Parts: sequence; structure tokens; C-alpha cells
Amino acid sequence: MTDNPAVIDPRDTVLGRSRVTDTPELEAFYQELAGQNAGAFWKRANAIEPWEPETRYRPTLWRYADMRALCLRAIDLVRPEEAGRRVVTLLNDSDAGRENVAVCGWLFSGMQAMKPGEITPAHKHTASAHRFIMEGRGAYTVVDGHHITLGANDYVLTPNGCWHDHGIAADGDVSIWQDGLDIPLMNCMETNFYAVHDQPRQTPAFPSNDLPLSYGGAGLRPEGVGAWDKPYSPVMVYRWETVRDALWNLAAVSEGSPFDGHMMRYANPLTGGWALQTMGAHMQMLPGGFRGQAHRHTGNVVYNVAGGRGYSIIGGERFDWETHDIFCVPAWMWHEHVNLDPSEPAFLFSFNDFPVMEALGVRIEEPYPDHGGRQPA
Amino acid sequence: MTDNPAVIDPRDTVLGRSRVTDTPELEAFYQELAGQNAGAFWKRANAIEPWEPETRYRPTLWRYADMRALCLRAIDLVRPEEAGRRVVTLLNDSDAGRENVAVCGWLFSGMQAMKPGEITPAHKHTASAHRFIMEGRGAYTVVDGHHITLGANDYVLTPNGCWHDHGIAADGDVSIWQDGLDIPLMNCMETNFYAVHDQPRQTPAFPSNDLPLSYGGAGLRPEGVGAWDKPYSPVMVYRWETVRDALWNLAAVSEGSPFDGHMMRYANPLTGGWALQTMGAHMQMLPGGFRGQAHRHTGNVVYNVAGGRGYSIIGGERFDWETHDIFCVPAWMWHEHVNLDPSEPAFLFSFNDFPVMEALGVRIEEPYPDHGGRQPA
Amino acid sequence: MTDNPAVIDPRDTVLGRSRVTDTPELEAFYQELAGQNAGAFWKRANAIEPWEPETRYRPTLWRYADMRALCLRAIDLVRPEEAGRRVVTLLNDSDAGRENVAVCGWLFSGMQAMKPGEITPAHKHTASAHRFIMEGRGAYTVVDGHHITLGANDYVLTPNGCWHDHGIAADGDVSIWQDGLDIPLMNCMETNFYAVHDQPRQTPAFPSNDLPLSYGGAGLRPEGVGAWDKPYSPVMVYRWETVRDALWNLAAVSEGSPFDGHMMRYANPLTGGWALQTMGAHMQMLPGGFRGQAHRHTGNVVYNVAGGRGYSIIGGERFDWETHDIFCVPAWMWHEHVNLDPSEPAFLFSFNDFPVMEALGVRIEEPYPDHGGRQPA
Amino acid sequence: MTDNPAVIDPRDTVLGRSRVTDTPELEAFYQELAGQNAGAFWKRANAIEPWEPETRYRPTLWRYADMRALCLRAIDLVRPEEAGRRVVTLLNDSDAGRENVAVCGWLFSGMQAMKPGEITPAHKHTASAHRFIMEGRGAYTVVDGHHITLGANDYVLTPNGCWHDHGIAADGDVSIWQDGLDIPLMNCMETNFYAVHDQPRQTPAFPSNDLPLSYGGAGLRPEGVGAWDKPYSPVMVYRWETVRDALWNLAAVSEGSPFDGHMMRYANPLTGGWALQTMGAHMQMLPGGFRGQAHRHTGNVVYNVAGGRGYSIIGGERFDWETHDIFCVPAWMWHEHVNLDPSEPAFLFSFNDFPVMEALGVRIEEPYPDHGGRQPA
Repeated sequence: MTDNPAVIDPRDTVLGRSRVTDTPELEAFYQELAGQNAGAFWKRANAIEPWEPETRYRPTLWRYADMRALCLRAIDLVRPEEAGRRVVTLLNDSDAGRENVAVCGWLFSGMQAMKPGEITPAHKHTASAHRFIMEGRGAYTVVDGHHITLGANDYVLTPNGCWHDHGIAADGDVSIWQDGLDIPLMNCMETNFYAVHDQPRQTPAFPSNDLPLSYGGAGLRPEGVGAWDKPYSPVMVYRWETVRDALWNLAAVSEGSPFDGHMMRYANPLTGGWALQTMGAHMQMLPGGFRGQAHRHTGNVVYNVAGGRGYSIIGGERFDWETHDIFCVPAWMWHEHVNLDPSEPAFLFSFNDFPVMEALGVRIEEPYPDHGGRQPA
Repeated sequence: MTDNPAVIDPRDTVLGRSRVTDTPELEAFYQELAGQNAGAFWKRANAIEPWEPETRYRPTLWRYADMRALCLRAIDLVRPEEAGRRVVTLLNDSDAGRENVAVCGWLFSGMQAMKPGEITPAHKHTASAHRFIMEGRGAYTVVDGHHITLGANDYVLTPNGCWHDHGIAADGDVSIWQDGLDIPLMNCMETNFYAVHDQPRQTPAFPSNDLPLSYGGAGLRPEGVGAWDKPYSPVMVYRWETVRDALWNLAAVSEGSPFDGHMMRYANPLTGGWALQTMGAHMQMLPGGFRGQAHRHTGNVVYNVAGGRGYSIIGGERFDWETHDIFCVPAWMWHEHVNLDPSEPAFLFSFNDFPVMEALGVRIEEPYPDHGGRQPA
Repeated sequence: MTDNPAVIDPRDTVLGRSRVTDTPELEAFYQELAGQNAGAFWKRANAIEPWEPETRYRPTLWRYADMRALCLRAIDLVRPEEAGRRVVTLLNDSDAGRENVAVCGWLFSGMQAMKPGEITPAHKHTASAHRFIMEGRGAYTVVDGHHITLGANDYVLTPNGCWHDHGIAADGDVSIWQDGLDIPLMNCMETNFYAVHDQPRQTPAFPSNDLPLSYGGAGLRPEGVGAWDKPYSPVMVYRWETVRDALWNLAAVSEGSPFDGHMMRYANPLTGGWALQTMGAHMQMLPGGFRGQAHRHTGNVVYNVAGGRGYSIIGGERFDWETHDIFCVPAWMWHEHVNLDPSEPAFLFSFNDFPVMEALGVRIEEPYPDHGGRQPA
Repeated sequence: MTDNPAVIDPRDTVLGRSRVTDTPELEAFYQELAGQNAGAFWKRANAIEPWEPETRYRPTLWRYADMRALCLRAIDLVRPEEAGRRVVTLLNDSDAGRENVAVCGWLFSGMQAMKPGEITPAHKHTASAHRFIMEGRGAYTVVDGHHITLGANDYVLTPNGCWHDHGIAADGDVSIWQDGLDIPLMNCMETNFYAVHDQPRQTPAFPSNDLPLSYGGAGLRPEGVGAWDKPYSPVMVYRWETVRDALWNLAAVSEGSPFDGHMMRYANPLTGGWALQTMGAHMQMLPGGFRGQAHRHTGNVVYNVAGGRGYSIIGGERFDWETHDIFCVPAWMWHEHVNLDPSEPAFLFSFNDFPVMEALGVRIEEPYPDHGGRQPA
């Protein structure tokens, strides 16, 4: 934000906005204030209190064909033992994105490719993380001693403060997934702590997949396996087959949202809330031929096309997508989704910072009011 | 409780218990108090403040072979239009049970048999109800306009205040289920309201099974289908296949409880709590050859053997059971379960008043301390 | 409840109620059921599912002049060391009241008089207790090591499971208070445990009045004094001066309820909820000349006139009251309050079982619909 | 953050950190990534995942003597009708502070002086605001139609989304207060909305001070005045006399924290939590001669000396303060407080972003481990 003249918008001429005309006396006063670590509020009031948010981020799309090739190249160029994590970072096409190492808003995302037998050394951080598996076989993660196997389109948590390491079984295939973290948020909040484990990989302390097998029964809660007092979901991994079937079930009995079709939140079954404290995630199914209406909301969303082909109009610009393309919708920007297949559904995985918006009391949404709810082409 | 002499237990001679020796003056005083709607606390203190609870209920078992025959007889003897509900009530083998029309504690249970084409007229009450299906085909219930189909070993809610009617499809089979309600609790609390619907059967207002299909995805919460603001679970019906598979999954990764083997609570996925406000329910799996240890707790439990054969020792008495036998464990009574099949698991459905105990701050439990945790034969 | 013929109300002839005409075959069936610990639901359905609650309790009033004299008599007749507690029990004028040792519903109340230097030996129970001080000087209670001084019209908690002993300082005056407990509820729920302390009186472990002095700041929460993880209010005692001033403040800015005038809940400042899990309490101020409207609700209320004179019409019957008279309103009975002083407010302390009603999901209320909201004289 | 070489700290040479040595092939790869809105994570990993937070803010102190003079000058230089609000902004002595118009972290603070008869035009914003009154007589604010009078050392809320206007009664005195807002946070989150009221001042819709008079009774909750469903405290204003007395009470019965002496949170009495969703506030009393120990924590704190004189050592630097001086402690910086008066207490008002830290799951604190808990001089 800059020290522009107070009036920066024609609407700023009304009572209740800053409309001061500077004078030599005021200029002198401003100098004096500056010498005291102070300033005149009215000089910057209209800039720091805009009528509505204007995002610093731009809608951006990454083609899986391109990104996949880069990820595979990285396998040949660096080893995880040296890189820490062999991640290709997705940088929003904006100064803010490049500066904050952000995919959109205060969210980080990257793509990680690993080959059989490789491991990412065990570490932990206050940043929360989750992964969406795009391809491969034999991938796993170990979270605080809980070993979790991973398949395509699975969604897995590595919550804040948990030790974690990942790898691919020796008899698996090269695997690629999308990481989502709140690293930029943690840095912005000056709360990012990091530690490395004293061993490269954790020794699992529980049977493989014990958490999803214990807590993954629909509407069921295990008794007698110890109280779960963590602020994140005990399910830890959400299997694609379960999510897909749940969406088909939902679609069979409801009309769905005009904006999002049929949509499931990855939830904490002990609270009904988000699976992590700082990032939410959804899988949505756009029915064959779905042509969504536009809306906008506070908070940022990063999409990964779990299946199908279509396009989204974001801030008036069309982005065509197909399976495993990644794109983002910045805060308070109009957006609408279209499934180009007339008969088969498209699936969009997405993650967001809605839990932060809700915690701060500023989750706000509105539908596009004109043209039948659709942005002009 | 009676006006026994104050000292009713050898322990009552200590300081802190009532130890008054009556005198003629005191007797006269007691008369005077009685005339003023008053009494001397110390006359009844030890009786109304026992060292620990002593239940008025007795462990009781109902054999399915016997009860099933009675239920089928009832089909020939009364029609649901006349009976309201054609229910054979299970009465605890105690004065309290017969007086309060209670199966155990303040819980009601009955068995209901219906034949194809029959309906139970639509009504509602402040009592909460749930059903566990024992046999049949084509049964359904309609709860506040939501039509729900029912199969064997399914568990279904008809929460307090909801309109509900049940029936069997014309092409179904005779069906038998066990009702559980908190009618005695509602009467004891003087909070029981009843109303009949203006139509014998509700017209469903939603697609069949819309609630379980929307909310029955494991760890998933539907977005955009309207906020759920009810104090009970939106899942409404918990399918046997789901519950059974979840128990096998749980058993694969955990040791289970020494008292209850592997056990799943029928939970509200939006809160992690009980599905209803006043009654909880569980399905538990006793592994082949399981010989449980004894414990006791406040609250009452009514069991329905979902599968297998074994016995339970309750208050020192052995009760052998097989599929669909029903038995109960009264409050604060030692009990332990044994699966007589050496290799196949047994399954026990049960419902309880634990939510009431928790709400009142008196859910208390203790393990049996002697003989390796098992009651003497 | 008795085995009356099914139809017990003219309304019971509609579809949805039990309307079975008994036949010899049915009579035989009933005999057979009785032999199997079973019964025919339709025989008792209309009785156990009434159209609305009908209380077993009666409105009852105890005059302080009379009760005070009896309490003082008790001082001469028994010593607390022998009586445990020297309490004159208030028994509802009904069979249920006398049988359950209840003042109204599942609530217990008594009046306790102690003289300087006396103590009530330390003990604890799962029943929750609270006291409302009517007169005296130098009274105190010790709750889990926290010493609390008590003055007239103070309201003090002795929550479930807490060790407590009471007494009057050697230089104090004879003191009288009203006890409220949920002993009948705990017995009815079969959850009443009792224990005596190994010392007649606890040694205070904290400075006197530490809890009210720490937590009694309006809208303020102490930091750094240890987390409060108990399910009851840390305030422990609510001083009359504070409550009275708060009511005057409230009356200055609000119209009050047509039923209750200005009313304050004794609340847990950490939750906004009730101070205890099973019993709520209020102080209400009826302005000079207040003539309230009638309403009824589930749950039972026991009043103690903290100051003033007036009358209440309960179930059509008028009860005149003045300072420290005690009276009760049974569940679902119409009641309205009148302040006979044209200019000075009257104050009613009351306690209730509303927390239980809320926990069970059955807190229901309705205004009296006719005659301008007032019962016929 | 910049594209520094990966290793930025000697500790970064361990397994689990990025330790890649760049090669020509890698350099070429980085170029290619940059062309695809992508980057190599390992190039910036150590920078964006520091071992612990390092704040961009500096401890800064504003002397009241200086700032007061500037505020009074502003009265002569601009009118509130033109300025919107005549606020002197406090800018942290750092680039981040000047850039973000922040006092510390994502908090905004300013000092506002008004003279009798002036008003600040009614407006609202998603930013939450509160004020701490330093001097004057006759100040008031109107929040969503609730008129609130303000005196010295009172703390008042103007929560997010509420219409508010302020003023000084015509017969009052020039008044000065400190504003605290989360404007930087709302901008950083891209969630800042602003609106002006259609009238310069709201017409109060309730009796003056109705909310504090209704909800300001200690441990008491008004019944029958409408449910409070807002996410912020209904008390709205916390009076100095109440807070001061509560601190004296607390000090009489507890030892206090070694870091903060006796400390009260301005709390929401309906939840026990913070009064606002995004900013917390405290008043603390440092006893005469208090020499606190050092600790550090995530989150930022802005202090206003409500009374007394002393100093604080922040990040090893000493800041002397007296009444109404303002200073700040940035995130994760060691700090300790000393009261220079040997016998009289000092009072520190402060506000913070702890609610945000808690909502994000990253409220972390640790005591200074060396030199008896005190930083070297």
C-alpha cells in the first residue's frame, strides 16, 4: 500500500471517508509524526479500509502434462536426502505469489515426485500439510508413528506439529502428489517452527492404517481405543473409492449447489468441522453437462481436477482444464465451473483457507447477481 | 424407600452418617413435622443417601424363540389400526419393571411384528425411539417426511418430536424388530407429550433414504444441502454391512477392550457424540473364544444378540444367549461376556442410557478387582 | 400407572391411539405374556403415553414463621454429630413427595439451622447441592478445601463429588439456610454414591473465599491461576449485594418478562450455562405492583421469597407469600406471580431442574392463552 | 524473503534440511520452472521454513507526553467530518510497521482525540475494533444502536460488522483514547469491507448502557432479554472500577504469574473466551516492587500503561514507561516487566492477537531458561 492521496475512489467523497485536503501546516505535521513512529490515519485510511477486498493474487492454471514432466525431471536432478523434499513449488502468477512462495492467498502448494525406495527424511513443523495423490503405487506416509498407505486420488493429512516422513515402497511405482500447506500463513503470522527427527524415518508404532481403519466407519466411533484429544481429524486418510461413492449417493438424492454441484467436505467425524485447523478440503462432482453459476467469497481455493474435462471462468477469464490440472481462485473473485462432458461427471478436488476465514469471523459469500448468475464471456 | 430406623448398614455408625436414637420428644417432633409437610432428614438420610447405588432392576433374558412366537401370535390377535402399535412389551423381571413398563432402568423396549401391507399410524412424542431390525424384508419408516428402508440388523432412529410411521411393503415379508424408547424416563421426568398426525401415513417429502445417502459417507460432510441444526444424528439409519465391516477393520488394528471386545458407537458424525440425546447404542464384536473381564457402571444396557452364541455373567448369575435373544444389565451390576464359539465372532447390539448419565455428570465405571477380573462362577 | 382399560381419555378414540377391545383370546394372550416377562403394549399405551404430562406433585407452600420455629426446635433436639446434618426436610404435599423425599419433581429441599461453633461433618456425594442463606451471621462452608463465608441471601454451591463441611463461627449467630439437592434424581437414576471424610472438618487449602474473589469479576477471567476444568461454576458463591445490584441495573434498561419480571440466572462465567449440571437457580425482581401473566413449562421450580410479599396462582390456586416463605411449582402447571406492594419490588430466589430438561431435549414452555394471560381466580 | 542460497544457518547442514549444491543443469531447470509459474522448493525451503520465527517488527515505545501533544495539535488541524476519524496512527519502528500501517504484527493502533460536541461519522467494517480510554469526560460510542458512555481506563468494543459512531457530549471535556483494530490482519487476509451509514450518527435504539447493565453482573446472566447469538461479548464495555477491584480481589488470594503478576482477561461471560474473535485484551497489576521473569510467545502484544511507572526489557532492550505510555512486544521475543514503585502497584492494559494464534493452533509459549529467568542487562 502506498501513500497515495486520500481519495482513491470516486465513492470516497462521502461523509465517513477521508477527504482531507493537504495544507502546508498538515504537511509539516506529517513530517513531525513520522519522526515519532506515527502517521496521520486520514492520509492512508481509504487505502487500508477499501470498500471491498481487492486481491493481490491472480487466477493461475498449471497443466499436468507440463508439470508432470518437470517433476519427473527433478527426480534425475536432485535426491530427497539433499533437497529435504523434492518439491516443485507452484507459484501464483503475481508478485505476491512469487514473494510469499504462495499458490494463492497464504496457501502453499507443490508437486512432489518420488521413485520406489526413496524416502523424505522425517521432520515436523507448525505448518499444517495435506496431500492429494495424483498417480503412482506404493506411496505411504508415517504420521506420528502411524503408517498410512496411499493410492490415487486419496487425500491424506499431516497435521501441524506431527512428525512425518514419506516414501515409496521398493516394489511400487513412481508416484506424484500435490502438497498443500499453510507455510505462507505460518510465516505471515510469525509462527513457523521446524525440527528434524533424530532418525531419517520413523519406526511405525501402530499397525499399518490403524487410524483410518479405526475411525473410518461411517457414523461410527470406536470405543475403548483411547480418547482422541487432537484438534484434527483422526481419520487421517480419505480413500477415493469412499469419496466417489459418497458423491454418487449424494447426487442420487439431492439437487446440489448451483455453484458447485455435489460437494463433500473432508470432515473430522468427531466434530463435523474441518479436518485441519487452518485448511479445508472438498471433493465435488459436476454432473455431465453441468454449467454452474458464479459466486465469490472470502478465502482462497486451489483445485486439482480429479477427473474429467471442463473449464472455469475466474474473474472473467476462461481456464480450460482436464485431469490433474491445477488452478486457483483468489479471494473475492467471481468464478463458475463448467463440465464439458455432456454425460460423464467431472470431479474437482480442492483445498482452501475457509477454516481461517471462519475462525476470524469473516467467511462471506455472495452470488453473481446478473445474467442469470453467469459472468459475461 | 421406607422409614426404617436410621442405621441400615453396619457402616452407618461412623461420624457423618445419621445415628440418632429416637426419644419420645423426637417422636413428638416427627409428628409435628408431618403435619407441616416436613420431615426429619436424619430419619431417612441413610436410606436416601446409600453408600452406593442398589438397583431396583434384575438382569432378565428373553429368548427369541419364545418372543418371536408371541409376536407372530399378536399379528393374528390385533390390528395396528386398533393397537396403535402392535408391540409386545419387554418387562423387567422386577416390581419396578412391571410398574414403570420398563425393560431396565428408565428404558422401554418392545418387539414389534408387522406383515406386508400393514402400517402403524403416524404419530409423534417427546420420547425418543430407535429400532433394531431382527428379521424381515420390505420394512420402512418415515421420519419427518424422510422415507427410510430397513434391513436385518440395521439400526434406525426416530428422534424425539419427529413424526413417524412404519410399515412393510406389500411385496415384503413379515418383519420383526426391537423398539427402544425412553418412555419411562419421559414419564418419570413428567415430560411426555403425544400427538397423532392428521393422516395415517406421511407423504414422503424427500427421495427415499436421502439422509443416510447424504450423511453416510465416512468422514465426509455434504455441503450445500441445508444446515443440520437438530440435536440428533442426520444419518438416521446405520446399515449392518457398514457396521460389520467397520468392526472387522477395527479388530484388524486394535486389541479391543477387555470388557467389550471391539465396539463401535452409533455416533452423530457432526458432533462425535451419541446419535440421540437420551439413548446411546453400540454394536460390539466378541472375537472367537473371547472371555471378557467384569466391570460395572452407572446406567443401564439392553442387549440384542446380533449373531453368535455365548453367555454373560450378570450379578453373579449366568445367562446363556444366542442370536436375537435379548437381555439387560442393570445399573452398577457386575457383568462379563463370553463368546462360546472358539473361532467365529459374536455380535452384540446394545442400547443404553449413557447420554443421560453423562449429561448429569454421573457416568461412573469400575473394573472388577478380584479373580483376574472375573466373577466367581 | 395402572392397568386401566386402554381408553382413558375421550381423545383416545382416534386412529393412532390404542383402541383395542379385549376378547377372551386376548385375555389368554395377556396371561401368557405375563409369564414371559412381557406385556401387550396396547393395554397400557395410552396410560404411558399421555397427551401431555400430568404431574404427581402438588403446589405446596411452607411458611417461614412455622418452619423457622421447627428448625430452632431441632437445635435443641439433635446434635449434628448424631444427625449427620440437622435438616428439616420439605416434603411435597403428595404421595410422590413423601415417597421420594422430594420437595417437587426429583428435587430435594430442606432447612438447616446451626448455632455458633457447630459443624456438619465433612462428606461428599454424587448428588449436587446448593444453599440459599436466609438468616444468620458467621456461616461458612468448605468445598474441596476452599473456605467460603456466607451471608444472608447469598447463594452457594457444593457441587457433585466435592468434599464439603459447614459450620458457624464461634462468634457468629444462629444461621438458617435452605438446602437444595438432587438426591431424588440421583436415587431415581440409581447413581447416588456417598462417602465420609477421614476428618470431621477439612483443613482449608486456599485463602478464604479464593474462588469468588478470583472468578467473581464481572466479564473478567483470571489468567495464570490454573485451568478450571470442572463442569460447574468456579464462582462458588454469588453474593446478594451483587445480585441485587445487577437486577436493579437490568430493570433500568429492560422491560422484563411478562411472566417473571427481571430475572438473573446464577451462571457459570466460563460457559454462560448453569452453575451446576443438574440444578439451575435464579433471582428475580418483581417490580412494585407487578402482576405477571401465566405460563407453564416442563421442569420443577422451588421458590424462596428473598424479600417482599405477594402471591402466586399455581394450577388455579392462590398462594400468598412473604419473606422466606418457600413454595413450589410442579411441572407443566400454570403459574403466575403478583407483587402486592405497589411501589417496592419483591425478590424471588428459585431453583429448578431446567438443566436436566435441557440435557434431555425436553425444555418446553407455553404462555397461558386466555383471559389476557391470567388464570381465572 | 529472498532467493538466498539454500543454507542460511549452520544448522541447515543436517539431513532433513535443504542442502543442494547448484549445478548448471539445476540453474537451467530453475529457469524453466520460472517460466511455468513454478520454482524449486529446495531453493527457498530453509528460508520459508525457519527453525523458529524471527519477527519483522521491533519493540517500540510511544511517550504519552509526546503523543498527547500531537493528538491535541490534530484537533486544530483537521475536522472529523473531513478526516473520517481524526486518528494519529502508531507505526511500528520497522519497515513492516510502516508498510502495513501496523503497530505490531497484524495489529493496528492509533490515538484519537475529540473535543466536546464532535462526532465521528457512523460507519462499519469487517475489521474488529476496541478502545481504551486515556482521559476525558463525556465520551460515548454507539454500537449497532446501543449507546455506551465512556470514562477513563474503560475498555470498550466495537466488534466486526457493527455500525458505530463516537462523540463527546457537548458538556464534556476533550477526550483521548487508544484505538486497537485488526485492519492489517483483515487486509492481509483480503477480507476488509467498509460501509458508511446513511446518517452521520445512529439514533440509539435502546436505553443508554443497556448491554453492560444487562450483562455486567458478575456470574449472572439475564433471562428473557432475547438470546445473544453474536460471536462477541455482550458486555461491550468493561469499567475501570470493576476491573481494578477484581484485580485487588485476585491479588488478595493468589500469588500471580511470575511473568505478568495478577492478570484479568476481558472475557465473554457467555463463553469464557475472548471478547472479540480476533483480538484479546488484558489488564494486569504488577505489585509494588514486582520484578517479573522473562518469557516469549507467539502473537503480538500492545501495552498501554494504565497507571504507575516501571520498565520492560524486550529483546534485551530496556524501555522505561509511565502512565499512558504505549509500547509493544513483537512475536516470539523475550520480555519481562518491572514495577519501579516499591509499594504501589502498576497497571498495564494490553491487547493482543492471541485469539488468532489459538484459532490457528499455534499459541506457543516458553519461559526464559537462564539467569533466574531474567535477560542479561
